Amino acid sequence: MYQCSEERMGDKIKTMSRFGDAGHGGITRYSLSPEALQARGEFVRRMEAIGARIKTDDMANLYATLPGSDPSLPGIVMASHCDSVKNGGNYDGILGVMGAMEVLETVAAEKIPHKRNLTAMIWTNEEGSLYPPAMMSSGVVCYDYLPEDIRVNFKHEDMLASKSVLDPTKTFGEALEASGYKGDAANRLNPKDYKAMFELHIEQGPILEAAGNDIGVVTCVLGMVNYHIKLTGQSDHAGTTPMKYRRDALYAAAKALDYLHEELDKLDPELVYTTGEILCHPNVHTVIPDYVDFSLDARHEDPKVIEQVVKVIEDMPKELAKCKTDYEIAWTRDTVYYDKELVGYVQDAVDELGYSNQRINSGAGHDAQFASYMMPTTMIFVPSKDGHSHCEEEFTTVEQCTKGASVLLGAVLKCDAAE
Amino acid sequence: MYQCSEERMGDKIKTMSRFGDAGHGGITRYSLSPEALQARGEFVRRMEAIGARIKTDDMANLYATLPGSDPSLPGIVMASHCDSVKNGGNYDGILGVMGAMEVLETVAAEKIPHKRNLTAMIWTNEEGSLYPPAMMSSGVVCYDYLPEDIRVNFKHEDMLASKSVLDPTKTFGEALEASGYKGDAANRLNPKDYKAMFELHIEQGPILEAAGNDIGVVTCVLGMVNYHIKLTGQSDHAGTTPMKYRRDALYAAAKALDYLHEELDKLDPELVYTTGEILCHPNVHTVIPDYVDFSLDARHEDPKVIEQVVKVIEDMPKELAKCKTDYEIAWTRDTVYYDKELVGYVQDAVDELGYSNQRINSGAGHDAQFASYMMPTTMIFVPSKDGHSHCEEEFTTVEQCTKGASVLLGAVLKCDAAE
Repeated sequence: MYQCSEERMGDKIKTMSRFGDAGHGGITRYSLSPEALQARGEFVRRMEAIGARIKTDDMANLYATLPGSDPSLPGIVMASHCDSVKNGGNYDGILGVMGAMEVLETVAAEKIPHKRNLTAMIWTNEEGSLYPPAMMSSGVVCYDYLPEDIRVNFKHEDMLASKSVLDPTKTFGEALEASGYKGDAANRLNPKDYKAMFELHIEQGPILEAAGNDIGVVTCVLGMVNYHIKLTGQSDHAGTTPMKYRRDALYAAAKALDYLHEELDKLDPELVYTTGEILCHPNVHTVIPDYVDFSLDARHEDPKVIEQVVKVIEDMPKELAKCKTDYEIAWTRDTVYYDKELVGYVQDAVDELGYSNQRINSGAGHDAQFASYMMPTTMIFVPSKDGHSHCEEEFTTVEQCTKGASVLLGAVLKCDAAE
Repeated sequence: MYQCSEERMGDKIKTMSRFGDAGHGGITRYSLSPEALQARGEFVRRMEAIGARIKTDDMANLYATLPGSDPSLPGIVMASHCDSVKNGGNYDGILGVMGAMEVLETVAAEKIPHKRNLTAMIWTNEEGSLYPPAMMSSGVVCYDYLPEDIRVNFKHEDMLASKSVLDPTKTFGEALEASGYKGDAANRLNPKDYKAMFELHIEQGPILEAAGNDIGVVTCVLGMVNYHIKLTGQSDHAGTTPMKYRRDALYAAAKALDYLHEELDKLDPELVYTTGEILCHPNVHTVIPDYVDFSLDARHEDPKVIEQVVKVIEDMPKELAKCKTDYEIAWTRDTVYYDKELVGYVQDAVDELGYSNQRINSGAGHDAQFASYMMPTTMIFVPSKDGHSHCEEEFTTVEQCTKGASVLLGAVLKCDAAE
């Protein structure tokens, strides 16, 4: 079994962590920002150094390819992203890019024979932190293969018109043009020229660490629903309205949160749900709030459990703290199962390497999930310290990152060897 | 007893409601905005028409004076404001200005003898909606008389540097220069040239309406405390963190709201408290919130009850839903009692007119409250339909507004006649 180099991997982590360094352990590296362009430059330099061919497509997705002995065969791509959320960490996304680089570097250094083209790839704008939505480029590239209710959110012209959340006068399309990485649409990832896609990623949760396992063999992306819960009361003056006359929408929101936690906690223990975003109107300390809207995101592999979540939402009392309650569905996605054959290659590779491992599902969305509608796809997870992600505390040891790359290499070589 | 004119009052209400008309029943009329300047222009036109002398001070406070038979005596001022909150109503502030205008118009029309100068006044920027803080000009004008912990927030140079909440490149000082209403600091309201200040205002609460009373004889402004309640948890990914590992600061905030409502509702039934403003970080629907801060504003006449509120805050559990709780005091004010002699004139005037009335306190802050530190001051309330204020539903009938002006006239004439 081939193994990747901890020294080379550690050097890549150290180098990439400088691009967008926020000064206290993490990074802010929005897609196509100067910091993200630095990371892309580093990718191109290192890949050219091992003789890889570089190309980009019209969404600035970036491909580095080591030709196989029979370039007429469909190739294998290893892909993730190099952008981060605001004050994010040094592993989400970029680890999958560094893992793909490490695989190609190992193949080049050890002159590992392979018949298919092997490609390391950077997806543009996975986080969607500056230009929403998340998974923008995989949404555009996989558009024709996505379910109708998902694809409506990824129309190419809408993506180009997406406005910067920091400066609404600027669009994603302008950033794309200015990036220097906009290429030909003909270069897009596609199921004719590529046989399979693999994505190495941090778990972003505490399960592997708690179990003491180094590798997660990912089997699916959890199905989910996303709702808005709305409370409508009456806006009045904080100093002049006796308590008994009040219809306080923020207090009603507290009651709604209590209700949801109490009822959802009775469902399957594997269910995860999050109320991460809240809007309060008018949000002035001297005015009783008349309107509050908060998000509810719930995820589970089993659609029956998701149905129970929807029932809890539908059964919410029509009135809480004298305020009207309401809900609106924002979006849903069904559980996406990864390709059984590729999952088998990952399992075989990790078993041969002798790394501790377990089957796991992905609660987060990834570009791999959209790619899986278009072509055989799977993922490999490594542990996240304390389960933290999308924050500066994000951490995975160099050893674990390298083990992930070694499993990726093993799985890719099995895929290369197969018919 | 003299009475004011319903017809003239109705015409003023209709005219002033056009300046800043937001198209659905209310107004947005920020201080010194083009809409506020229209309202000032109308004030000046109508006051000049009855022979009043116009002057302004360096904070653009605007004074219209009908000279008395002995102008050497200290005068009487009737003052309120013509600016509004965003999407505010047609009565808060401007009613006190229109009531003062109506008093002078009645004095002029009926040739009512008076020995003292009688002044209608507009305070600049009471709401502080565009340029914080609220009660800015009365804070500056009464500065030397205010308690130290209040006055620190009203330093003249800080007020001039106050930035627009809509465009931080613009300051209040610039708006003042551009307004055309900036005058001489020597013209400021002061306790040497003025004997007393009266302010007519809507109640902004439901008490008068519920009791079926037309007039509130105001005795004090409620003491209050203002706190920030803070919850600190851990930010993690919505899809990948099992429920048992979560430290969700928004859920902790719901628990804190539950605790505060439960404990504060055990205190005096006259206590009012409001949690109007909430900040949630990072406020993204796919991330567990790690920090929530909400405001708590509590008001009561009796400082002992306010002390009980502080005790409830201090006794809050140190941990809620696995998150750390914390609190910070933002500001406090003691109950401010209005001048007993002036309150007596108001009571006598309303009794002579035979209008239904009651004693009432003011839960809201007003310019009169700062003025009361400098000179004898009091207020008169008229009912607010359904208790609504700081919103477009704000409403008081023309009859009730006119009754308020008639009581103001009666009280001013009693004050004029006294030594």
